[in-house]
Amino acid sequence: MTQTNHYNIAVVGATGAVGQKMLETLEDRKFPINELKLLSSSRSAGTKMIFKGTEYTLEEATPESFENIDIALFSAGGSISQKLAPEAVKRGALVIDNTSAYRMDEKVPLVVPEVNEADIKDHNGIIANPNCSTIQMVAALEPIRQKLGLSRVIVSTYQAVSGAGNEAADELRQQSQSFLNGEELEANIMPVGGDEKHYPIAFNALPQIDKFQENGYTFEEMKMINETKKIMHSPSLQVAATCVRLPIFTSHAESVYVEVDQAGVTVDQLKTLIGEAEGVLLEDDPTTQTYPTPLSAAGKRDVFVGRIRKDLDQENGFHLWVVSDNLLKGAAWNSVQIAERVIANQWL
Amino acid sequence: MTQTNHYNIAVVGATGAVGQKMLETLEDRKFPINELKLLSSSRSAGTKMIFKGTEYTLEEATPESFENIDIALFSAGGSISQKLAPEAVKRGALVIDNTSAYRMDEKVPLVVPEVNEADIKDHNGIIANPNCSTIQMVAALEPIRQKLGLSRVIVSTYQAVSGAGNEAADELRQQSQSFLNGEELEANIMPVGGDEKHYPIAFNALPQIDKFQENGYTFEEMKMINETKKIMHSPSLQVAATCVRLPIFTSHAESVYVEVDQAGVTVDQLKTLIGEAEGVLLEDDPTTQTYPTPLSAAGKRDVFVGRIRKDLDQENGFHLWVVSDNLLKGAAWNSVQIAERVIANQWL
Repeated sequence: MTQTNHYNIAVVGATGAVGQKMLETLEDRKFPINELKLLSSSRSAGTKMIFKGTEYTLEEATPESFENIDIALFSAGGSISQKLAPEAVKRGALVIDNTSAYRMDEKVPLVVPEVNEADIKDHNGIIANPNCSTIQMVAALEPIRQKLGLSRVIVSTYQAVSGAGNEAADELRQQSQSFLNGEELEANIMPVGGDEKHYPIAFNALPQIDKFQENGYTFEEMKMINETKKIMHSPSLQVAATCVRLPIFTSHAESVYVEVDQAGVTVDQLKTLIGEAEGVLLEDDPTTQTYPTPLSAAGKRDVFVGRIRKDLDQENGFHLWVVSDNLLKGAAWNSVQIAERVIANQWL
Repeated sequence: MTQTNHYNIAVVGATGAVGQKMLETLEDRKFPINELKLLSSSRSAGTKMIFKGTEYTLEEATPESFENIDIALFSAGGSISQKLAPEAVKRGALVIDNTSAYRMDEKVPLVVPEVNEADIKDHNGIIANPNCSTIQMVAALEPIRQKLGLSRVIVSTYQAVSGAGNEAADELRQQSQSFLNGEELEANIMPVGGDEKHYPIAFNALPQIDKFQENGYTFEEMKMINETKKIMHSPSLQVAATCVRLPIFTSHAESVYVEVDQAGVTVDQLKTLIGEAEGVLLEDDPTTQTYPTPLSAAGKRDVFVGRIRKDLDQENGFHLWVVSDNLLKGAAWNSVQIAERVIANQWL
């Protein structure tokens, strides 16, 4: 690093939905950057992007791209991370990877700073950023788990198309206009770009995010289940997930049912815990119809929680509604936040 | 009744989203109609509508409107049902009421024919049609309850705007176009026309359907909870609901978690039960990305079920995805179906 306390940063996949938000977030946070390198596939190489008023030309990511890089933020798909993250590490860079490539690797910390910041220091060059729908849920549930104990989670998600990239957002825009024009809907991307069948997403709901696994769950559902246990260091926590893609551009919402260990917990106790939690904001007042929505959360870095209520049958059961910008806390901001904690704690 | 086995039918609220579907369904089903009377509020009186190629002029619904009526299908709001259903009954009509006015009245059967047809015969002139989101869920779960026993249901809904009427659908259309044009969204109807605050529904998700109750649940959630127990004659069944309005025009979807009484149940057993159930169609094959969606279910009278899978922790827990056209099985078709059963069983 050339300038004291300033770092050479590479963003891999800078043109993507998450990559763009990473640049915005680095700028918003006044991240101490010495040199910035924007990397991409050969397809996007040559593209020009603006950062802090300066034009940058994207270069094709190669092993050599990571010479002299301090921190590399990867968000260009799992196969690119698998190929290039080890090369970056070999050259001394710390990789913060936003793909699913290393998340369940035992040697790789999977980090949501509000939940398990301390795991960062055990890194071996790679830190994984969890799945978007997992991040906002564990951020909301960790204060509950810490104070009251958590035995069970059942979540149904309401997920935005931007989690599937800019192409998915474009498809929603085009299909929505076609629908309003009374035209046929053409589906080429959703629910999963690389899968066999495609269904319209405009004015629809698709109960498939990522590919189906052999057990009948989608990969997105298994990510929520497995990643939640790893991040919370709670292998015995029961987690069930149903993941649904919706005609929403930005922010995931989640209907979450939890069972806590402690008896006699009240809704007010939960509200206090959530309200005091780092990175989480309580927006919950039925008397004034106050609750978070995808539109109200979009563009913000916090996780918003509302609709907290006690189950009518289970003494220790509660329901919550959790919303956050899937590209910020769900991806770019969580990655940059990890980088900030790495620097603050001198864990580079 | 003038013609043998043909009936004098009144449709109250014929211009509404459900009323229009009632007329379509009566026509599709070749319902044995002698005389048809279309009734409405004074506001809509004089409106002309076509039924089987014949033009009808809407009359304002008054107590006298129900003279000589055999069956009156009400769908014009709870206050109109409360005022006029007793008047219709007094004049010898059987009322099938699609509002929430009488659903929890102990003297009024609440009927989904596939579940509790036999309750119809105990009517005292009024039969209540359940809430749309309740109907499709109990239709899907009843075969499970009957064969395996059912102890617990946790549902998160994905509900279409047409359940809130034509004005809500118009608002979604207008807001969607404004959003695509990059204009501000104007919200005057959703989530609840008669409530204080309004939020945009286009490209958003609103965790409020109907007004909030004192316990922090919305009235829609309490409908699902209470109506399910009544229809299934299962007061001790545990039901929890989170109801969410989405930018979808037609069909409600539901992510449903159930616990069955019987041990050792397999997913294949559940699929067989669902597949053989009356009025329910299984659309479930992860290997071919087969599952129902709101768009695929729209315009059809059946309830569609997919994504059936076993919970990964609870031996007796299963997850399902239930979709149906909220204006058909959720409203108009279920009402007409009740009328058909009344006639077939001579329960008039």
